[in-house]
Amino acid sequence: MTSPAQASLLHLDASIRTADSVTRELTGHFARAWRRAHPSGDHAYRDLAAEPVPHLTHAVREALLDDGYQGEDHGASPAERALNEALTAEVRAATTIVLGAPMYNYAIPSTVKAWLDRLVTPAHLVPPDGGPALLGGKTVVVVTARGGSYAPGTPREGFDHQEPYLRSVFASIGLADDLSFVHAELTLAAVVPQMAALRPLAEKSLAGAYESLGRLAA
Amino acid sequence: MTSPAQASLLHLDASIRTADSVTRELTGHFARAWRRAHPSGDHAYRDLAAEPVPHLTHAVREALLDDGYQGEDHGASPAERALNEALTAEVRAATTIVLGAPMYNYAIPSTVKAWLDRLVTPAHLVPPDGGPALLGGKTVVVVTARGGSYAPGTPREGFDHQEPYLRSVFASIGLADDLSFVHAELTLAAVVPQMAALRPLAEKSLAGAYESLGRLAA
Repeated sequence: MTSPAQASLLHLDASIRTADSVTRELTGHFARAWRRAHPSGDHAYRDLAAEPVPHLTHAVREALLDDGYQGEDHGASPAERALNEALTAEVRAATTIVLGAPMYNYAIPSTVKAWLDRLVTPAHLVPPDGGPALLGGKTVVVVTARGGSYAPGTPREGFDHQEPYLRSVFASIGLADDLSFVHAELTLAAVVPQMAALRPLAEKSLAGAYESLGRLAA
Repeated sequence: MTSPAQASLLHLDASIRTADSVTRELTGHFARAWRRAHPSGDHAYRDLAAEPVPHLTHAVREALLDDGYQGEDHGASPAERALNEALTAEVRAATTIVLGAPMYNYAIPSTVKAWLDRLVTPAHLVPPDGGPALLGGKTVVVVTARGGSYAPGTPREGFDHQEPYLRSVFASIGLADDLSFVHAELTLAAVVPQMAALRPLAEKSLAGAYESLGRLAA
């Protein structure tokens, strides 16, 4: 129900690394550039790895389906309801969201899925009649990092299950109006000797990611 | 390193429901039929909802990458290492795996992702040289249940991010030699008044799922 009056960034990280995380460095780059471009904007941060959203439970799911939490608690604890409300409020308040989602085993981290499972609620689903979505109109930037390449023609073509999935789930809740993906590929080339020949490509991918994020934040 | 000498079923459920779960009923049907067909077979059960595998951490990931757990613990606790080893041993010992994976928000439950994140290890990855996979040769049956339909021509065509993802990740660890999917669709038709007209289709889908599972278990 929030109609954001001013620019507000929600910055989310999910890498299990605290040091040497490519996605954390890239989302940080975006956030700094965004704040330079929006000096009076708000800024919220959530670390989905350091404080993971617990796996969905039946009680939490039932409370989420009870639109707007106006009804019964369905067995969800006060802490669980408070977390749902905090996650919801953060997303509603943001005008721009940047999500760092490293690829783990061809997909998003389970912590990002657990976060999404709190956001796909009846209040957030795009109305079937085509009416305006409560979360519509936001800018969403997803930053991924992958050890290999998933580009057309590579052996792992078709194994990127991050971008197609996030496009679907974000579309379902109105977060795909202005949705961009920035991928840093071949991150393992820097550390795996057999991939040494791919280092120039990896460096090019990373440089491109920084460039794209600077442009998207401006 | 296990070379299963006899038929052995690993039965996994992940529904957050304990009552009225379509996937639990269907995997149970498969397990009963399988046991009738393999009266001297082994049978293991794991409930990924009741005892969820925790979200991946950096320490657990590093321990998993240290092939075979022969090396350092990388900060993973004894309990974390014991869980990794239990999950690995269950899968290695099985000749048949049945996984109940309800669709939550167009994808697998985060608990199933957390389970997969423990299985994709260097020892399990299909060798790039095409050599035999340690987990190769098993029969894998995935049972899903979805509130709607994701068939071609439906509004949610392209929103099934369960089967494509599981096909990829299972292929990467040698679990796609004999991999089948059984989908029970339109499960919400039984409870959502606006979907009442779809009940015959839902009943047909469910009946087809039972029939397929009986055949696959024989």
